[in-house]
Amino acid sequence: MKVYVPFSPENPKTRLSSLLTDEERVEFVYACLGDVLEALEKTDAEPVVLSTEPIDGLGGHETVVRDEPLTPAVNAVLRKAEPPVGVVVADLPLVTSDALRRLFAPEEGFVVAPGRGGGTNAFVTRISGFRVDYHGTSFLDHIEKARELGADVRVIDSFRLSTDADEPEDIVEVLLHGEGHAAEFARERFELIEDEKERVTVERG
Amino acid sequence: MKVYVPFSPENPKTRLSSLLTDEERVEFVYACLGDVLEALEKTDAEPVVLSTEPIDGLGGHETVVRDEPLTPAVNAVLRKAEPPVGVVVADLPLVTSDALRRLFAPEEGFVVAPGRGGGTNAFVTRISGFRVDYHGTSFLDHIEKARELGADVRVIDSFRLSTDADEPEDIVEVLLHGEGHAAEFARERFELIEDEKERVTVERG
Repeated sequence: MKVYVPFSPENPKTRLSSLLTDEERVEFVYACLGDVLEALEKTDAEPVVLSTEPIDGLGGHETVVRDEPLTPAVNAVLRKAEPPVGVVVADLPLVTSDALRRLFAPEEGFVVAPGRGGGTNAFVTRISGFRVDYHGTSFLDHIEKARELGADVRVIDSFRLSTDADEPEDIVEVLLHGEGHAAEFARERFELIEDEKERVTVERG
Repeated sequence: MKVYVPFSPENPKTRLSSLLTDEERVEFVYACLGDVLEALEKTDAEPVVLSTEPIDGLGGHETVVRDEPLTPAVNAVLRKAEPPVGVVVADLPLVTSDALRRLFAPEEGFVVAPGRGGGTNAFVTRISGFRVDYHGTSFLDHIEKARELGADVRVIDSFRLSTDADEPEDIVEVLLHGEGHAAEFARERFELIEDEKERVTVERG
């Protein structure tokens, strides 16, 4: 099964600007992409990077370049793809092959892992005609669309697949649970700090 | 297996004060407790409420009252309990019996589900002598202690068990994914709002 990994390294992760320089934000999204690709390689999936610009240095993965926003880029590949086909976002710093195998194992027509805040972090569609619309609470919209197309829907309950890399508190999770390049990147720069109310934040180490 | 559910309804969830009145915060933690107990009842576990004060109206569950902070209260029951024994926090508004079965199924000596920010939302210990210390990043500390006691450790990857009910953004998750009393409580009061940057928040409906 082909699994597309949308990737856009142009001014990424602006909500991490309080923690990371412009260059570091680019480095960080490449680290996350590397983690997603390595985890996918340990499964039966064939990862394909769907990038807004040519990339290199990632071990010769198949890459499709489409200089488009996320939704039309993914829909362009879905239109051409033969189901089953998967889409896993590139910014999953806690991803593991075990978590991805849980996404790939069920037989339902549409299998999906939500992100925090209602996003759609990963899905597999076994039905034709499914299209994405990533704005807002896309998780609910995608389930509704899949059901309209007659698919049985399975939701995967995964903390690792739900954790993206958008906000400073996501870096806390990377430091706590990460195992790959993104974690190495974060541990080189940050350490966990507990405030007086025992909330955990990050600071430059 | 006995599974203790620590519960403290005295001025709970102060970080939700921007959204909920004092009375509503109490009502909300009771709704969460009801969800946790009902989900536990659908498993093979025997839930026991470990409360700081007598409670009623929850269907005659076994209750232990200990007017103590969380850590000493849990350690008091762990000292007396015969392993295996579990502890599941009461504020898991997305809990399901499926998620709890994934916690109870593995055979390892210590099985644990982290909360966001490094908390310990649920665990089962099959070894004697394990004690908790819930401050800060207790998840890492608990794993370390279990290993020192010779236990094999299994971490359960669950978005539902990782999501507690501490912050306004947790209410977003309740509205998106909740299925029980906590979700009913939230849906009676709030609706999802997307801001111009497509981040999702809640507002009084």
